[in-house]
Amino acid sequence: MKKTVGAFLLACAVSLGVGTAGAEQKPVEPIVPATGINKEKAELGKKLFFDPRLSKSGFISCNSCHNLSRGGTDNLQTSIGHNWQRGPVNAPTVLNSGMNFVQFWNGRAKDLKEQAGGPIANPGEMALNHDLAEEVLQSIPGYVAEFKTVYGKDKIDIDQITDALAEFEKTLVTPNSRFDQWLQGDKEALTVDEQAGYKLFQDSGCISCHYGMAMGGGSFYKMGMAEEFKTDNPSQGRKDVTGKEEHHFMFKVPTLRNVELTYPYFHDGSARTLSQAVDTMARYQLGKKFTEKENAQLVAFLKTLTGEQPVFTIPILPPSSDTTPRPEPFE
Amino acid sequence: MKKTVGAFLLACAVSLGVGTAGAEQKPVEPIVPATGINKEKAELGKKLFFDPRLSKSGFISCNSCHNLSRGGTDNLQTSIGHNWQRGPVNAPTVLNSGMNFVQFWNGRAKDLKEQAGGPIANPGEMALNHDLAEEVLQSIPGYVAEFKTVYGKDKIDIDQITDALAEFEKTLVTPNSRFDQWLQGDKEALTVDEQAGYKLFQDSGCISCHYGMAMGGGSFYKMGMAEEFKTDNPSQGRKDVTGKEEHHFMFKVPTLRNVELTYPYFHDGSARTLSQAVDTMARYQLGKKFTEKENAQLVAFLKTLTGEQPVFTIPILPPSSDTTPRPEPFE
Repeated sequence: MKKTVGAFLLACAVSLGVGTAGAEQKPVEPIVPATGINKEKAELGKKLFFDPRLSKSGFISCNSCHNLSRGGTDNLQTSIGHNWQRGPVNAPTVLNSGMNFVQFWNGRAKDLKEQAGGPIANPGEMALNHDLAEEVLQSIPGYVAEFKTVYGKDKIDIDQITDALAEFEKTLVTPNSRFDQWLQGDKEALTVDEQAGYKLFQDSGCISCHYGMAMGGGSFYKMGMAEEFKTDNPSQGRKDVTGKEEHHFMFKVPTLRNVELTYPYFHDGSARTLSQAVDTMARYQLGKKFTEKENAQLVAFLKTLTGEQPVFTIPILPPSSDTTPRPEPFE
Repeated sequence: MKKTVGAFLLACAVSLGVGTAGAEQKPVEPIVPATGINKEKAELGKKLFFDPRLSKSGFISCNSCHNLSRGGTDNLQTSIGHNWQRGPVNAPTVLNSGMNFVQFWNGRAKDLKEQAGGPIANPGEMALNHDLAEEVLQSIPGYVAEFKTVYGKDKIDIDQITDALAEFEKTLVTPNSRFDQWLQGDKEALTVDEQAGYKLFQDSGCISCHYGMAMGGGSFYKMGMAEEFKTDNPSQGRKDVTGKEEHHFMFKVPTLRNVELTYPYFHDGSARTLSQAVDTMARYQLGKKFTEKENAQLVAFLKTLTGEQPVFTIPILPPSSDTTPRPEPFE
């Protein structure tokens, strides 16, 4: 079974034209801390990440749905957007998201910078528009000075805004999980059950998709390989981007890093617990059912993937000026 | 005019039975950093302050409306609550709120601890209830351990929850503003215009209400002393608590500390800018109009009240367990 599914996985990946050939051979790797970060740019990006003025309401920031106190997610089935709209898919974690080969569940953004512009202008999320985002920030003296320092220009534009956001997000890596300590040679770092869980993870084929430093985020795969996955969620995955029927329910494989913190699971947020998520993956992707003990071992292993969370001081945002366009939460 | 209004202010205060006799004589004082804080308790309180699981939706935390990146406010006319409900009054800053003689605009809570229980259970704000708040936290192993450390009990209750929140809030003081540096002897700390603004602040009677360390928060006063204040906002102030007609539009005097950050102003959030707020106070409280220059000097002075904002690392919240009641944002 494993080999058959693996071959099909590979075929799917190749049909998408993504670089996943040899995916089964790719190992997992310990997370290495972010390097080459422009600190001033990242500090500016941190402010923007926490600034609700990038939303029409003045109430929703990036951190509202990618809450860095909560594994970079909102822990909701799907997110809450402008005017309490129900979001279409489960908010993916922003932690280690710089390791994703594309962004969003359906891969519609090529990188963090392109991703960052999406929610700001999405009418169901932050519901601003890029012109107004620029106008708001340009009216705030503290931002004008800080953008000038970082980009050397007097005029703030969306390209700078998303660039700074992306730079901050690149810092959001979570090294030194117990699993990584184990990978790096500390054989005491995992219990016997956790190691058994990792062996199941490898032998059952989970690792075919959840490989690399992020243990995911490196390819698209179909949700429902072994059995058709049923959901009320209207998202069609990659098909929504390409329009191609063969891309129906193809999603970017989510990272498993910090998965203990990023409940509920899947694009539709249908699995409340890790145990349920393991059951669902086994049934729909592998066509099997783990015993209760195996499920517990896999869950125990998955909980060893929680790394050191980014530690930083909360940003203090520069105040609006008298000319700053005011939020319009009820219009 | 000033003396007449001052006498009336005093009469109002006395009629409310609050300890404001001699208010006109009370000086302003520099803010002193918080002392006697139980650090473990405050750290637990910080987690709770940032935890959206204290709301029914799982989306709104204390920090949503008392945003510590934004002067402890949401910078909205009135706040957004559960299901995008429009709040009744402007969210007061949580900064230096431990110095208030009572809490809320209408003083319906006697202290920070009593205040903290209000928004959690308010159907228009966080919309949870205290029983469910206890049940949620009790289901989270990380919280159970931390409450045990702080309170020595296995059972988490609302009394502990609000006590920890209050302890964190007590830490949120903002010392060392330029005005405080000036008060403490650094005569270079304020410009000539800023000093002129402070003289106007004293001579015009502003200081009759905005006195003490917080420059406010020490008494109730009527909004609309010199001229009836008109607003669409339905709040009746202290009358909503006591039912007494003479308490109509009596509000707790807000602190002026960090007022540059806490726009818009007044219980109805009707003043967008400091300049407008000064105009409104002059007209409705003092029965006068400042010249453009005087207004600018007062605004310049008010901006010297911005102190050092609380600097701390964002809390990392303990994850829910499989048995934690899930949020219900759309029910």
